[in-house]
Amino acid sequence: MSLLAVDHAARRARLAAVLAERDLDAALVSGPRNVRYLTGLDSSNAALLVTATGEAVLATDGRYAEAAAARCPDVTVRLDRQVGAALVAQARSRVAGRARLGVERHLVTAREADRLAEVAGAAVALLDLDEAVEGLRSEKEEAEVALVARACALGDEALLGLLAAGLAGRSEAAIARDLEARMLLLGAEAVGFESIVASGPNGSVPHHHPGDRVVQRGDLVTIDFGARVEGYHSDCTRTVAVGEPTGWQRELYDLVAVAQQAGVAALHAGASVAAVDAAARTLIAAAGHGEHFTHGLGHGVGLDIHEPPWLTGADGATARLGTRSTVTVEPGIYLPGRGGVRIEDTVDVGGPQGDDVRVLTTTTKALLTVD
Amino acid sequence: MSLLAVDHAARRARLAAVLAERDLDAALVSGPRNVRYLTGLDSSNAALLVTATGEAVLATDGRYAEAAAARCPDVTVRLDRQVGAALVAQARSRVAGRARLGVERHLVTAREADRLAEVAGAAVALLDLDEAVEGLRSEKEEAEVALVARACALGDEALLGLLAAGLAGRSEAAIARDLEARMLLLGAEAVGFESIVASGPNGSVPHHHPGDRVVQRGDLVTIDFGARVEGYHSDCTRTVAVGEPTGWQRELYDLVAVAQQAGVAALHAGASVAAVDAAARTLIAAAGHGEHFTHGLGHGVGLDIHEPPWLTGADGATARLGTRSTVTVEPGIYLPGRGGVRIEDTVDVGGPQGDDVRVLTTTTKALLTVD
Repeated sequence: MSLLAVDHAARRARLAAVLAERDLDAALVSGPRNVRYLTGLDSSNAALLVTATGEAVLATDGRYAEAAAARCPDVTVRLDRQVGAALVAQARSRVAGRARLGVERHLVTAREADRLAEVAGAAVALLDLDEAVEGLRSEKEEAEVALVARACALGDEALLGLLAAGLAGRSEAAIARDLEARMLLLGAEAVGFESIVASGPNGSVPHHHPGDRVVQRGDLVTIDFGARVEGYHSDCTRTVAVGEPTGWQRELYDLVAVAQQAGVAALHAGASVAAVDAAARTLIAAAGHGEHFTHGLGHGVGLDIHEPPWLTGADGATARLGTRSTVTVEPGIYLPGRGGVRIEDTVDVGGPQGDDVRVLTTTTKALLTVD
Repeated sequence: MSLLAVDHAARRARLAAVLAERDLDAALVSGPRNVRYLTGLDSSNAALLVTATGEAVLATDGRYAEAAAARCPDVTVRLDRQVGAALVAQARSRVAGRARLGVERHLVTAREADRLAEVAGAAVALLDLDEAVEGLRSEKEEAEVALVARACALGDEALLGLLAAGLAGRSEAAIARDLEARMLLLGAEAVGFESIVASGPNGSVPHHHPGDRVVQRGDLVTIDFGARVEGYHSDCTRTVAVGEPTGWQRELYDLVAVAQQAGVAALHAGASVAAVDAAARTLIAAAGHGEHFTHGLGHGVGLDIHEPPWLTGADGATARLGTRSTVTVEPGIYLPGRGGVRIEDTVDVGGPQGDDVRVLTTTTKALLTVD
C-alpha cells in the first residue's frame, strides 16, 4: 500500500546511535507516532524498547497481535496490556548492572511514570529520553515526503472543487464539512485536523472554530485545512475574497503574500529557523503590522500535523533545518473586529539533491475571487 | 447553537463538593474535555482551578482569549501559555497554609508534573485528583443526552444511505470514507472516530483498519462508526450480509443479536456493570464462543468516545451505573480466519424519569442483506 518501502530497522539503528551518544542503555518509546515511525505498527496501546546495541522489543495487547505480527516481522513482540511496565521489566533482564533507560517524559502520563518507576525499582535508572525520536522524524525520507506531497495534492483538488461550488450564502461550518467530505471522497484516509473556516470579522481569530456565520459578498474567508494519507499530513491555508475585494483587503492580502513568498525564499537545508521566521516577519513589521502577526511562521509536518522543526525566532531559537524537512510557511495578519489574512504552504526543503525547495501545496497564491 | 443551555457553574459546584469530601483545597483540571465540561471552553491549551469553596480560575493562552471571554463570563480568566504552572501559583496565593491540590495525574505528562511540582514547592501538596471530573461526566444531563441522540440519528441516516448505495465491489477504505463523508454532509461537526469496516475474514479483527480488500458477495461486513455533534459522540456497529448469508453466518449473527438484546435488557439506572456484561456474555459462552468474545461489553459515551462507566466484569469490577448514563452495548464474536459479527447500540439509561431505557441508534438489528 505504501508508495515506497520504509526501512524501520534503519530508523531504529539511528535511534540506537543516539542512545550510545547520550550514554543510555536503552529507550522506552511510548508515543504512538514514535512507535509507528520505528516499527510500522499503528496502535493506541503499544510501546517499544530499543537498546543501544540495536535490539528491539515491541509490546502491545491482544487486539493488535495480528497487525504486529504482519507489520513488524523483524522485532520481538510481547503481548501485554501494560506495555510500558512489560518493557521496563525487559530492560531489567537485558542489561547487566543498573540499566540507564530513557523514557519519553513529555509523552507518558505522570501516573504511567509512577508505574514505570515501581517496576524499575533500583535495577533501572529512568532518565529523560526527551524528543530523541521526534528529532529523527524531523529529518524526512523520500517515502515520507511522497506521502506528504500526495496529501497536499489531494487537499488542493478538494479546495478547487469547494471554491468552484461557491461560498456565499453558506455557513462556515457547512463549508468546512463540505471541504472535509471532498478530501475523504478523493481518497484521504482521514481529515488531517478540524478545518478552520473564518469569514469576515472572524478572520481576526487565527484558530476560529467554524460556526453559524453565513458567508457574504464582501467577506474575506480564510480556509486552513489538511488531509492525511497513510499517516502523513498536509497543511494549507488560503484566504479568498467573496466578490470583488476592497482596497484594504487587497492591500492586506498582498502584504501577507509577499511575506509568505519571502519566507519560502529563505528556506534551504541547514537554514536557521529564526532567520526564516525573520524573513517574513520583518516585512510585516515594516508595514506596521508586527503586533498583528501573533504566531510563529511555521512548523514541521509529518506523522503529526505539528512537529519539529519549529520556524520561530521566539525564545532565542537557534535551531537549524536538517538536510531534508517538510515544513509550513504561514504568516498571517489579524485585525481585531475587521478580519484577517493567512497564506500557508507545505514545503519540501532539501529535496533529493539536498538543495531543492519545492512547494507541495500548489493552489495559486494570487488573490482568488469566488462567488 | 446548543440544543439546551448548560449550567457550568452547577457542574463546578458538584466538583467543589467532591473536593470537600476528599479533603482537597482545590483541583487543577487539565484534561481538555474536563475543562470544556466545567467551563464550555474548547481549547488545546487550557486548565482550570476549582477550589473547595467554589471559586474558579481558567488559564489559557492568547489564541483563546476571545473564546474564553465569550464562553466563560462567570470565571476569572488568566492569559498565560504555562496554564498549569500559572494555576498552581494561583492555588498558592488563594489557600492559607499548605494547600492540598488535586492534579489529574492520569492526564498530565510526567514532564508537566515535574513543572507543577517545581512551582508548588513546599507551599502546595500535589495529590492525585484521579478521575473525579470523569466521575461527574458519567452522570449525564438532559442536554448532553440530546446531543448524543442527535449524533446517533445522524449516524443512522448516513449508514442507511451507504447501505442503499451497496457495498460489493468497493474497498473497505472507500466504504469507510463514503460513510464518513455522509456524516459530515448531514451536519456532523466531525467524525467521532476512524470508522472500522471489516469484511469477510477481516471481521475477526475487532479493531480492523479498513484497507484495500474489496467487498464480495458472500461477505459479512462489520461497520463500526460514529458522529460528533457539539463535542458529543455516537457509537454504532452493524454487521450486514452482502448477498444471501450462509447458515453459519446467520447462526453467528443471531447469537450476537440475542446477546446484544440481553445486554440492553439488563440496563437500568443503578445496574451493576458486571451484571450487565454477564447478561450478554453468558449467552455467548453457553453457545461455546466465550473465548471469541475478547473485549468488554461496552463503555460510556459523551465528550469522549470511550469514557466511564465501563461495562465489564473483568478485574472484579463492582461499579454501578448512575441515575442517567449513555453507554454502548456491543458484544462480538470473532473467528480467526473466518470472520466475525459485532452489533452495537448507544443507549440512554435512566431517562428523564429515572427508569427509561432508550436505544438511541435505531437502525434495525435484523440481519440486513445488501448488494
